[in-house]
Amino acid sequence: MNAADPRQFLLHLFESALDAVDAGTLIAHHLPAAPRGRTVVIGAGKAAARMAEGVERHWGGELSGLVVTRYAHGAPTQHIEVVEAGHPVPDAAGVEAAERMLALVNGLTEDDLVLCLMSGGGSALLSLPAPGITLEEKRAINRALLRSGAPIGEMNRVRRHLSSIKGGRLALACYPARVVTLVVSDVPGDDPGVVASGPTVPDGSTARDALAILERYAIPISSAVRAVLLDPARAAPRPDDPRLARNETIVIATAQTALEAAANAARNTGITPLILSNSIEGEARDVAAVHAAIARQVRQYGQPCAAPCVILSGGETGVTVRGKGRGGRNAEFLLALALGLDGLPGVHALAADTDGIDGTEDNAGASLAPDTLARAAAAGLDARAMLGNNDGYSLFSALGDLVVTGPTRTNVNDFRALLIMP
Amino acid sequence: MNAADPRQFLLHLFESALDAVDAGTLIAHHLPAAPRGRTVVIGAGKAAARMAEGVERHWGGELSGLVVTRYAHGAPTQHIEVVEAGHPVPDAAGVEAAERMLALVNGLTEDDLVLCLMSGGGSALLSLPAPGITLEEKRAINRALLRSGAPIGEMNRVRRHLSSIKGGRLALACYPARVVTLVVSDVPGDDPGVVASGPTVPDGSTARDALAILERYAIPISSAVRAVLLDPARAAPRPDDPRLARNETIVIATAQTALEAAANAARNTGITPLILSNSIEGEARDVAAVHAAIARQVRQYGQPCAAPCVILSGGETGVTVRGKGRGGRNAEFLLALALGLDGLPGVHALAADTDGIDGTEDNAGASLAPDTLARAAAAGLDARAMLGNNDGYSLFSALGDLVVTGPTRTNVNDFRALLIMP
Repeated sequence: MNAADPRQFLLHLFESALDAVDAGTLIAHHLPAAPRGRTVVIGAGKAAARMAEGVERHWGGELSGLVVTRYAHGAPTQHIEVVEAGHPVPDAAGVEAAERMLALVNGLTEDDLVLCLMSGGGSALLSLPAPGITLEEKRAINRALLRSGAPIGEMNRVRRHLSSIKGGRLALACYPARVVTLVVSDVPGDDPGVVASGPTVPDGSTARDALAILERYAIPISSAVRAVLLDPARAAPRPDDPRLARNETIVIATAQTALEAAANAARNTGITPLILSNSIEGEARDVAAVHAAIARQVRQYGQPCAAPCVILSGGETGVTVRGKGRGGRNAEFLLALALGLDGLPGVHALAADTDGIDGTEDNAGASLAPDTLARAAAAGLDARAMLGNNDGYSLFSALGDLVVTGPTRTNVNDFRALLIMP
Repeated sequence: MNAADPRQFLLHLFESALDAVDAGTLIAHHLPAAPRGRTVVIGAGKAAARMAEGVERHWGGELSGLVVTRYAHGAPTQHIEVVEAGHPVPDAAGVEAAERMLALVNGLTEDDLVLCLMSGGGSALLSLPAPGITLEEKRAINRALLRSGAPIGEMNRVRRHLSSIKGGRLALACYPARVVTLVVSDVPGDDPGVVASGPTVPDGSTARDALAILERYAIPISSAVRAVLLDPARAAPRPDDPRLARNETIVIATAQTALEAAANAARNTGITPLILSNSIEGEARDVAAVHAAIARQVRQYGQPCAAPCVILSGGETGVTVRGKGRGGRNAEFLLALALGLDGLPGVHALAADTDGIDGTEDNAGASLAPDTLARAAAAGLDARAMLGNNDGYSLFSALGDLVVTGPTRTNVNDFRALLIMP
C-alpha cells in the first residue's frame, strides 16, 4: 500500500482505524477473571452485539445475558441475546429491552459478575423513563432542551435524572453483584460516565441539578416530572456509593486508538501523519473551512507539516439543517471542503463515521480529490447549491465516491484524513 | 521575555507580529529607482498613511500624491496628502478621494512613476461607481450579493466591473506612466489582484462574467447598470494589456510574515511554535471549537505538538450576528474558545485584528486564561448567554482582558495564538 492511489491509501487508513477499534477483538484483553457465581452480560450501543460476540468467543465459563443495539447492527451470538431497537429516536423495543435488562440483573448475589458492554448510541437504545413519566413526555423535554441552546453536558444531566436506568442506576440494580463495565468511547474526553449516559457510572450530579437546568432554560415540566425529580427515594447513586465499590470501568477503545492506528499505517508507507485532535466539534462546513486552510498552508509553506503528510482528526461535527438534501455530517464536511479547496492540487480526503453510517444514509462517508468539483460540474451538479441544500450524499453518490462499509458494529465517532502531496 | 506571565508572552508575540508587518519600515526594501520624470504616490487601505509616511522617509527625490485611509488611521506626512474616509461602508469622502486620485494621475508621461500603496480596506475606501451608477445603487447590489450566498470571489468580481477605478482601471488611468504597486495583503492566498479589489491589477475577468454572476444569484439590476456592464468602451483592462506591460506589483507584507515573526519570538523563548494556517476562515465560534479540540489534544497526547507550544494562525473568521452585544470576531472567537476549553489548565490565548480594531470597537482583541470563565462567573457574568448575544467585548472588557493597540496602520488580518503549557 502506498499513496499512488490516494483513495485506496485513505481507505487503507480508515480500515486500519476500524480494525484497531474492533471491539470484538479488543475485548479479549480486558475480560476479568470468571466469578465464583454466575456471569450476566448486559449492554447497549452500536458496538454492543460485536462486543457480546467477542465476550462469547473469549470467555471461559458459563454466561447469559441481553444487549441492545441499533437496527441492523446485530451480530450472531449463542448465549447472549441481541435485541435491536430504535436510534437516535428511542422506541418501544429499547424500552422493553431496558426493562428486561433490569429484570435480568435482579436477584444476583455478591458471587455473581455483571459484564456491562457500553458504547455510543446506548443512551437512546436504553431508554427507560422514571416511573410516572411517559416516553412521550421525556421526548418532549428532550426536544425543548435541544431547542434551548443548553450544552450537551447539561442536556445529558437532565436525561440521567429522568431515567430509571441511567446515571449509575443500572449498576445499583445489579448490586450486590460486581459490575465490570467495558466501554467503547464516542465522546470527547472519553469519560465513561458520559458514554451512553453512564448507566453503570454515576457522575455525581443530583436531581436538584437537573431541576435547576430545566428552570434555567425555562423548560416546562409536568408536576409528575417535578415529583420524580424531588423524590429522595429515586436519587441516583453517588460515585462513592459503597454498593458500587467493587465495580470497575475500563475504556477499551477510543477515537485516539483509531487515529493512532491510521497514523501508524501512514508512517509505514512513508507519509508523515499529524493528529490534529481526536475530539473536533463544530459546524461541519466551518470545520471544513479550517481543514482547507491547513491544507493550503501545507502546500504553500510546509506547515504545520511537510508534504507528503496526512492530517488526521476525530470527534463529531454538527450540521445545521437548512436544506432538504441527503447526507450526514461527513458528506457535508467533504462537500464544504471541496468548495474550500477549490481544486487545490495534491489534496485528497476521506471523512466517515466509524460506526459505518453517516447520518441516516447507507454510507459511512465519502472521499474527495482535486478533481471533485470539476467532475461534479461535468456531471451537471452545482456543488455550491448542493451544499446549501445539505445534499452532500447525492453529490458523492453521483460521482461514485461514497465510502460504504455497512454497520461496523463499533463506534468511536468520526474519522477524517486529509492526504496532502507535494 | 518568557512564558512565566502568559498574557505578557502572548502580547509579546502579537507585538513581534505587528513589528514584522509595519509597512512604514518594510517599504524601504521595496522602493524602485527614482524615475526621470515625476513621482506620484497614490493608495488606499488601512495601511495607506503608514506606507506613505515610509515612502517619504526613504524616498530620495521629489514626490507628491494622495492616499485614502480609514478614519483615525491617518499619519503625519509632508508631501503626500492623507485623506480619511468611511470603512467598511463607503462614503462621499472616499468617492471624492477616488475622483481626485484619477485626476492626479491624468496627463502623466512615460518618464513618470506612480507608486501605488494598497492594503486591506482599500476596496471600500476607494469607491467610485461607474458613470451612470449611483453609490446607493452600487450599495444595494452589494447588499443583495451579501444575502445571496455568493462566494466572496464572485462578489468582488461584480464590484470590480461596477467600478470606475477597480480591476486595473486605476493603472490604465496612470498610463503612459509606469505603475509600481506595493501591497500589504489581508487576503487568503495573497493575490494582489484581490487586495482592495486590485485597482492597479487586472484579474482577467470580464463584465460579462459579472453579469452572469448577477443573473445566477437573481440580483435585480437597473437598465443603467446593465448598459454599463455591456458597454465595450468601459471594459476593464486585460492582464496582458500592453499599456500595463512596464508595471510591477510587489507584496511587501502578509499574514505569513506576521506569523513567522511570532513563531520566531516564541522559539527564542523556548516555546515550540506551530503555524496552523495563515488563512483560516469560518464562523468564529466553530473555528474556536476546533482550536479548543487541538488544545485538548496537546494537553492529553502532545499532538500535534508537545507542550510548551504555541499554536499560531491567521486569516479572517466571520460572525453570524444573532444578538445585540458588542465585539468583533476576535472577541467572539475567544469567548467561544473559553467555553470550549471550559477552564482547561495551562491554556492561554490571544486573538486580535492586526489592524488594531476588532470589528467596530476600540480594541484590537483580547486574551483568555484558564480562569476566564471562573472570573466571569465571579463577576456575575453569564459567559454562555453573552456568547449567544455576540457580547464578547463586554465580557473581556469587564475582566480587564482587552488588548488595546489603537489603529496599527497595517493590516494582515487576524492573529491568533494559543499558548499551551504542560
